[in-house]
Amino acid sequence: MMSPRVWSSVRQGLSRGLAPNVRGLASGEGRKVDIAGIHPPVTTPFTATAEVDYGKLEENLHKLGTLPFRGFVVQGSTGEFPFLTSSERLEVVSRARQAMPKDKLLLAGSGCESTQATVEMTVSMAQVGADAAMVVTPCYYRGRMSSAALIHHYTKVADLSPIPVVLYSVPANTGLDLPVDAVVTLSQHPNIVGMKDSGGDVTRIGLIVHKTRRQDFQVLAGSAGFLLASYALGAVGGVCALANVLGAQVCQLERLCLTGQWEDAQKLQHRLIEPNAAVTRRFGIPGLKKTMDWFGYYGGPCRAPLQELSPAEEEALRVDFTSNGWL
Amino acid sequence: MMSPRVWSSVRQGLSRGLAPNVRGLASGEGRKVDIAGIHPPVTTPFTATAEVDYGKLEENLHKLGTLPFRGFVVQGSTGEFPFLTSSERLEVVSRARQAMPKDKLLLAGSGCESTQATVEMTVSMAQVGADAAMVVTPCYYRGRMSSAALIHHYTKVADLSPIPVVLYSVPANTGLDLPVDAVVTLSQHPNIVGMKDSGGDVTRIGLIVHKTRRQDFQVLAGSAGFLLASYALGAVGGVCALANVLGAQVCQLERLCLTGQWEDAQKLQHRLIEPNAAVTRRFGIPGLKKTMDWFGYYGGPCRAPLQELSPAEEEALRVDFTSNGWL
Amino acid sequence: MMSPRVWSSVRQGLSRGLAPNVRGLASGEGRKVDIAGIHPPVTTPFTATAEVDYGKLEENLHKLGTLPFRGFVVQGSTGEFPFLTSSERLEVVSRARQAMPKDKLLLAGSGCESTQATVEMTVSMAQVGADAAMVVTPCYYRGRMSSAALIHHYTKVADLSPIPVVLYSVPANTGLDLPVDAVVTLSQHPNIVGMKDSGGDVTRIGLIVHKTRRQDFQVLAGSAGFLLASYALGAVGGVCALANVLGAQVCQLERLCLTGQWEDAQKLQHRLIEPNAAVTRRFGIPGLKKTMDWFGYYGGPCRAPLQELSPAEEEALRVDFTSNGWL
Amino acid sequence: MMSPRVWSSVRQGLSRGLAPNVRGLASGEGRKVDIAGIHPPVTTPFTATAEVDYGKLEENLHKLGTLPFRGFVVQGSTGEFPFLTSSERLEVVSRARQAMPKDKLLLAGSGCESTQATVEMTVSMAQVGADAAMVVTPCYYRGRMSSAALIHHYTKVADLSPIPVVLYSVPANTGLDLPVDAVVTLSQHPNIVGMKDSGGDVTRIGLIVHKTRRQDFQVLAGSAGFLLASYALGAVGGVCALANVLGAQVCQLERLCLTGQWEDAQKLQHRLIEPNAAVTRRFGIPGLKKTMDWFGYYGGPCRAPLQELSPAEEEALRVDFTSNGWL
Repeated sequence: MMSPRVWSSVRQGLSRGLAPNVRGLASGEGRKVDIAGIHPPVTTPFTATAEVDYGKLEENLHKLGTLPFRGFVVQGSTGEFPFLTSSERLEVVSRARQAMPKDKLLLAGSGCESTQATVEMTVSMAQVGADAAMVVTPCYYRGRMSSAALIHHYTKVADLSPIPVVLYSVPANTGLDLPVDAVVTLSQHPNIVGMKDSGGDVTRIGLIVHKTRRQDFQVLAGSAGFLLASYALGAVGGVCALANVLGAQVCQLERLCLTGQWEDAQKLQHRLIEPNAAVTRRFGIPGLKKTMDWFGYYGGPCRAPLQELSPAEEEALRVDFTSNGWL
Repeated sequence: MMSPRVWSSVRQGLSRGLAPNVRGLASGEGRKVDIAGIHPPVTTPFTATAEVDYGKLEENLHKLGTLPFRGFVVQGSTGEFPFLTSSERLEVVSRARQAMPKDKLLLAGSGCESTQATVEMTVSMAQVGADAAMVVTPCYYRGRMSSAALIHHYTKVADLSPIPVVLYSVPANTGLDLPVDAVVTLSQHPNIVGMKDSGGDVTRIGLIVHKTRRQDFQVLAGSAGFLLASYALGAVGGVCALANVLGAQVCQLERLCLTGQWEDAQKLQHRLIEPNAAVTRRFGIPGLKKTMDWFGYYGGPCRAPLQELSPAEEEALRVDFTSNGWL
Repeated sequence: MMSPRVWSSVRQGLSRGLAPNVRGLASGEGRKVDIAGIHPPVTTPFTATAEVDYGKLEENLHKLGTLPFRGFVVQGSTGEFPFLTSSERLEVVSRARQAMPKDKLLLAGSGCESTQATVEMTVSMAQVGADAAMVVTPCYYRGRMSSAALIHHYTKVADLSPIPVVLYSVPANTGLDLPVDAVVTLSQHPNIVGMKDSGGDVTRIGLIVHKTRRQDFQVLAGSAGFLLASYALGAVGGVCALANVLGAQVCQLERLCLTGQWEDAQKLQHRLIEPNAAVTRRFGIPGLKKTMDWFGYYGGPCRAPLQELSPAEEEALRVDFTSNGWL
Repeated sequence: MMSPRVWSSVRQGLSRGLAPNVRGLASGEGRKVDIAGIHPPVTTPFTATAEVDYGKLEENLHKLGTLPFRGFVVQGSTGEFPFLTSSERLEVVSRARQAMPKDKLLLAGSGCESTQATVEMTVSMAQVGADAAMVVTPCYYRGRMSSAALIHHYTKVADLSPIPVVLYSVPANTGLDLPVDAVVTLSQHPNIVGMKDSGGDVTRIGLIVHKTRRQDFQVLAGSAGFLLASYALGAVGGVCALANVLGAQVCQLERLCLTGQWEDAQKLQHRLIEPNAAVTRRFGIPGLKKTMDWFGYYGGPCRAPLQELSPAEEEALRVDFTSNGWL
């Protein structure tokens, strides 16, 4: 684990405006982007008739932009990317880039099932302003997604991507864990800078950090529920759906970890576990969007087949926040 | 189970040319298409540079068209549909329609993750010549795919589809079983005619047949490995990847079941279990395509990230056929 | 599949009294016992203070003894064997042997976690009158229960058992499927006569029948839910918890299958699926015992930690029987 | 998280000899034992003929007794308890009590499948010298092991136990996670002092610590792989199979966590992940015993059906230690 002091200077450097250059540097020359910090995976707002509501997207980003995030993930699982057309995916990223503060990173989800489509989407994402591409594991043919197949897939994507690539493993959605041996091999690719791991197994996160320690490879926790533990094991940040509603608190947790205030960090982490589970595993994106409505953001409806919460679910969702003192 | 005699006349009626009208009748008036029989889920041939090879598709269909199949599934899981663009999906169906005998059904896989995209794809599939749409369960947000969500999804699709809809549950790919209660509810929809169940749990297939017995609802086994058992429980046919290479044998198994020759059926079924597992669960589409090359069809490469078989895998694949007397 | 006629003579032979000799022949000389037919896995009755109620056990067996079962499984999973002491396990078998008709087989569950304990229990079971031992897979260290480990275990038990051994795979309880390759190897042992498979995967059952066809190896379905399908694939009988309450109907289903009346068999099978699920997977032994009370047998309480059904569960259990015309 | 200073004084208190009284105080009056610290779950040594080798048990304990452990778990999963007779289980505990330093806690695994047997074993364990009972979840009927059933089970055991009870959840062996809501309810029982959680989900561990914070309830990590993360979330110690061979290092990791030296802790934790996986999930007890032989303890054979490692497994085991600098 880097010392709090070193981290502090790294983060200050970023906040002094070094970030804007990252995009340019990263491409071509294999320079790596620093993804350390907290990134909310933003939702895609829809109108009542299920059109993408770009205005609401911009409003949300303006509000979120005031918080000390490192950047934003656009078109992650939380962004309902499987429900968008290719042109919607790109337009959402383009609009987000405009609405976001210039010094924040934009990590764009560009994963598709085929390698070729993923390459094309990644290149397009770069063109509309993404700083890095977050590439989810292909999964429909998971029975054949061996380490060899996944290494081949990511190598091809990274070879051809003009922006750095972040691996993305999210077994709750894909039914597939990107194997540790594949991660270790891929960490040596000059255009692969890190990984988002949403599986919640921090022993695995520790092992990945350990076995990639000779690479410049950064691991992000994929959820706020195990953020403290991930920092303790050597992760450098998180992509946290919860940060869409409790963004200040998640950043506070980051700060406590980076500065070594582990006791306070633990107390705060404890109070975030249930709210986090509520807006992820338990009630999904409908739960997160409902909560956003409560916290002054625009949540709104999801696209079908995702359904609104029932009244009983909504009540349980509320309890997960009130019982921890957040509502 | 309908008597062999009744089935025989049903199948004769179809073969006497009633089928061509089915397409017209089914749409609009809610008339149902009879999907009973064997349907190979055809592969999508690719060139060495991973372009769709429409010529090879037509060649394969010409060869397969001489066998007593009820129809063909185009763009099922075996067709690598997640790797095709929307326009490729439609073009493949359009070309297949031209290459197929007129009296065979074309069941087109039209499932997408969002309800809206599925509706649009289904309508388009109808326009390019599909007789019915086979709609896989959306699955990326499987944690929220409750019975209610799935009923909503399929109802919307069936309401708006100009062609009959066939439900499609394939947990090995989706991580999701379409719940029996949802199937029972959906079986009452006038434009939902049946289901393909690839899960392999014949107790479940029997229960679905039993609980939909008052509807005109047809269940197809999703694999040749449990075809006999499915017939014994009341299924009326199968969508069998193995029929791409052992089509005559799978149709022979159908005939033995329909005519009540269960002892011979059992002997034949036994010899098909290992080859079937080899071209599905064990070696996937790469295994099926390799086998097609052996049996006089065009197999060719898969799109990435699916990888070719290793030499050891290829040898094991061969043994699964030779040890059962098929090579 | 043996012809119905052949089976009929086999069964008649058994009912004419050939069975009593089986026990003597089987031991020592490696002669095999014929386990074809239906076997209820009997429950262990308890008093209100959780003592084994041997009187009720005898009463139940007297009633069940009038039905055309091939035999009884005593100390299977349904018999709550993990809750009994070693001496209770033996005493239950001893009493059952006395209470059962002489011409019925007694298959005694003798599985323990260690190989040595299983050998000892098997020998003891033989001494108190078991005709064959049904040996469940050890499972606590399932991560190390490779085919090699399981082959070693069963070989040792079969080598030392004075009575024939029946393999028993029940993944719902053990989290472990006895691998097909292990079954094939073990089927060659002269003192292993067959297998009870409760997993419900009839493709697997068919494959086991196929790959052991050169051995005298008999496969029993482990549940009434897939009994017809198992017969269709070559199984020769079943160990069916449901037969404790709908024994005549399960035997009728057997007869319909053996005599090739598949249409009637299908109708009957359909009506047994929900009641069977209710007394096994859905409500477990508490559900079965409650149902026994309804059907004129003694059910009574289970030992803790198994709990009585809640009123809502009891109502749902009743519906599973009434909606299929059994209550 | 308690401050390092407070913990330090707690641990010093224990080491100054307060512990010997714990045993007496705990029983009867509902006084709680402090289980904070590291506890190796000791193996049961066997002779070449599979007899318990009590002499080797004593030798191992003498060696281990020199390390700064809080105590020892005897008859945990690592102790092959399912392979021992009841009298062997008690004799092993009795001998361990004699061989152990007086100021170390003895936590005895006393779980059985039935509630009654567990109560009896727990009482007997107390009689032969156990300070607390570690009670694994019953699991054979896991489909019926609801929260209600498990609460009933543990309440009864705790009511009747003369020594404090520690809950024990180990899903890799039992296929069952003790639900959080059940843990929270049980934490209020005056004779239940804590829990060993071997599942590896530290979000869950954090939630349990959080929701039991008003009780005097102590959580132990069930494996060294997530020990640092568990401390960071509020656990107070660990039951670590790895401590049988790298005991000093595991205790060093504890000290680094308790004194807030998180960077050094992380480095050490990283190097323990692979060796820990090797002696638990990957190669099981045969792997641990082989490693014990390398590290100067007596490992020896396991009871069947556990098999010795193959030469290839043994080599892989060795690499997991050498590549991390431990051999």
